[in-house]
Amino acid sequence: MKNENSAFTRSPEPLLDLAALRADTPGCESVIHFNNAGCGLPARPVLRAMVDHLHLEAAIGGYEASAARAAEVADFHASVAELINARPGTIAFAGSATHAYTKALSAIDFRPGDVVLTTRNDFVSNQIAFLALRRRHGVEIVHAPDHEDGSGVDVEAMARLMRARRPRLVAVTHVPTNSGLVQPVAEIGRHCRELDLLYLVDACQSVGQLRVDVEEIGCDLLTATCRKFLRGPRGSGFLYVSERLLRAGFEPLFIDMYGARWTAPDAYRPVDTAARFEEWEFPYAAVLGCAAAVRYALEVGVEPVARRTPALAARLRERLADAPGVRLLDRGRAPAALVTFAVELWQAGPFKAALDAQGINSALSHREFAQFDFADKDVEWCLRLSPHYYNTEDEVDAVADTVARLARRAPGGVR
Amino acid sequence: MKNENSAFTRSPEPLLDLAALRADTPGCESVIHFNNAGCGLPARPVLRAMVDHLHLEAAIGGYEASAARAAEVADFHASVAELINARPGTIAFAGSATHAYTKALSAIDFRPGDVVLTTRNDFVSNQIAFLALRRRHGVEIVHAPDHEDGSGVDVEAMARLMRARRPRLVAVTHVPTNSGLVQPVAEIGRHCRELDLLYLVDACQSVGQLRVDVEEIGCDLLTATCRKFLRGPRGSGFLYVSERLLRAGFEPLFIDMYGARWTAPDAYRPVDTAARFEEWEFPYAAVLGCAAAVRYALEVGVEPVARRTPALAARLRERLADAPGVRLLDRGRAPAALVTFAVELWQAGPFKAALDAQGINSALSHREFAQFDFADKDVEWCLRLSPHYYNTEDEVDAVADTVARLARRAPGGVR
Repeated sequence: MKNENSAFTRSPEPLLDLAALRADTPGCESVIHFNNAGCGLPARPVLRAMVDHLHLEAAIGGYEASAARAAEVADFHASVAELINARPGTIAFAGSATHAYTKALSAIDFRPGDVVLTTRNDFVSNQIAFLALRRRHGVEIVHAPDHEDGSGVDVEAMARLMRARRPRLVAVTHVPTNSGLVQPVAEIGRHCRELDLLYLVDACQSVGQLRVDVEEIGCDLLTATCRKFLRGPRGSGFLYVSERLLRAGFEPLFIDMYGARWTAPDAYRPVDTAARFEEWEFPYAAVLGCAAAVRYALEVGVEPVARRTPALAARLRERLADAPGVRLLDRGRAPAALVTFAVELWQAGPFKAALDAQGINSALSHREFAQFDFADKDVEWCLRLSPHYYNTEDEVDAVADTVARLARRAPGGVR
Repeated sequence: MKNENSAFTRSPEPLLDLAALRADTPGCESVIHFNNAGCGLPARPVLRAMVDHLHLEAAIGGYEASAARAAEVADFHASVAELINARPGTIAFAGSATHAYTKALSAIDFRPGDVVLTTRNDFVSNQIAFLALRRRHGVEIVHAPDHEDGSGVDVEAMARLMRARRPRLVAVTHVPTNSGLVQPVAEIGRHCRELDLLYLVDACQSVGQLRVDVEEIGCDLLTATCRKFLRGPRGSGFLYVSERLLRAGFEPLFIDMYGARWTAPDAYRPVDTAARFEEWEFPYAAVLGCAAAVRYALEVGVEPVARRTPALAARLRERLADAPGVRLLDRGRAPAALVTFAVELWQAGPFKAALDAQGINSALSHREFAQFDFADKDVEWCLRLSPHYYNTEDEVDAVADTVARLARRAPGGVR
């Protein structure tokens, strides 16, 4: 019944061996995981890399273990570089994308009146960081307007702001955490390059599900987490710093004995690579887990994943489009695999709990995560479902059926 | 033979069940681990907490796993608070001590001419951070003088500098990474409290081997790693922020959606606790591993550990005191369990490799880690041996014998 009359009856990506990919993913046995935008399910090689390293550390010592795995640690930088079309020396590991993002921001010696040009759909933590910079250093935050149809930022209007205000920084989130919107980061990048503006892209929700190519985007800086669509460990992310910036001496405010040499009592010298954004202490098990996750993503293939993953989300949106009590909130021409909707008759917590009870992993977004977007959409919360390539069409249909069934009436069916 | 005529023939701490503690430590089977100042060997409960959580994440999802372990996650804050005599709300998890340290520094709105008063034995990364602050914000770095006998900072001279210069920050490393020196942090704290000066203590090498009590020290801020003498995971540490500072609105420069609420498009409000220094993303396996490590340390007992660990180091120093070719470098009246020495006839790398080959884990410190201290001692490098309470007297003696044998002649025996 489920697959009849659907545009997605045929697998959207025949190149993927779904059975093998699922067998490689322990979580597929126990849950329908539609919370990949929160944290993806790791594949076995990722889990194995981490657990093996923890055992090695316990057996021979933490420093001794990382020395013994130096080649695999270096592969973190090489694999991420390959993934985003960069060189290994431009990649820095970070404990989180936010850590990477604020470390990048810290490298900019903001002055009162400096403009940060951003969008109305940027990640909440980035927005709070800009507000903190406004308070500390007097920067001005300018939000480029969106297209009226909600299909993301108006690039031409943004370019006019670039020319008029000469921002110290242009900061764009590729895919917001609270909707399937995909911002035209490469179009924006062309204007930044033309005007020689510093351009920072938050790719947390895009890397691992869409193609992310720093040359194509034209960014100077890019940050991402590894735990979401890359299916890496919690507590891991990375920062890309262009060679142009590195050569120009771009360095974080706080630099440590790993990122710099203490050359004399009153002098230090940053290292040449993006390692100047790293710290002496690494969570090596997580670094190795990331390297395994990125290698896995490269082996599965960026292109097949980038076709299948948004297609599964499109199938879910299609199935939910007419469900009573459900209001889909995603906008944009080619949305990513974040499916967001409001549920009229329910409160946030109970609705998510009802999905949990069915073995369906989901996430909630609240107004305080998306002050502009949720005001525009006039919602206080939304439910977010984020499938990934290892999910099946049957799972999509089962989730859509469950959501539709629950949303139809208020909890308990009494109201 | 080894224990004859030694003051340490009797175990210095009869309360510890050494056989049980060693059976609980997988690494004791394969190595003589005298690199606890680098990274301690984890006990089984630490390893188990981490590995179990990684498996749970893979089985049910990363967000779902941390929600299921919320009580154990909260115990990180509770156990660290108990360890250092603070309240749970004053503790923030950090991915490293350096991260905790720079986050604390970032909360201070330094102005040109502000003085940072520190010592000649502070941790290299802290010194580099101060130099970076000098470059960015024009702070002045003042190093309090040491006692002439090398027994650490001259507190009276430091107090005179406090009164004369009214530093914006007093920053002291409790135990430097490159010697067994223990700085009188509580004495310094009394002056800071009297003069109402902001006081930051780096307790990386002391927490887990010595008693660290923030009330007794009188500090406003304290940072530490969990991987060293606490025997916790790599990639973990914490920051203590006094309630006084929290109430006064002390917050990091960059605060994220975990540390603050985005209350309106142009406003945010920090949370009440030290969680304002944390980030949304945690490496949960490491957090749980830390909680297990701190609980383990509390169960073993801070006092017995604080007696046994420096006593093992004292035994090692005693055995090395007359070894030809070895020059002990530790100073101070009651040194901690970091035993450092120069080896006249060897280069750094080959000497460490020779110990590695004997199954003895050690560490090297270089001039660039300790520009003041190593200039005073006129050395370019030292070998650091750092036993912990789970090491045995026999291991101490075996290591001393090996060092003495190697140091006696140049590598290969040809020179």
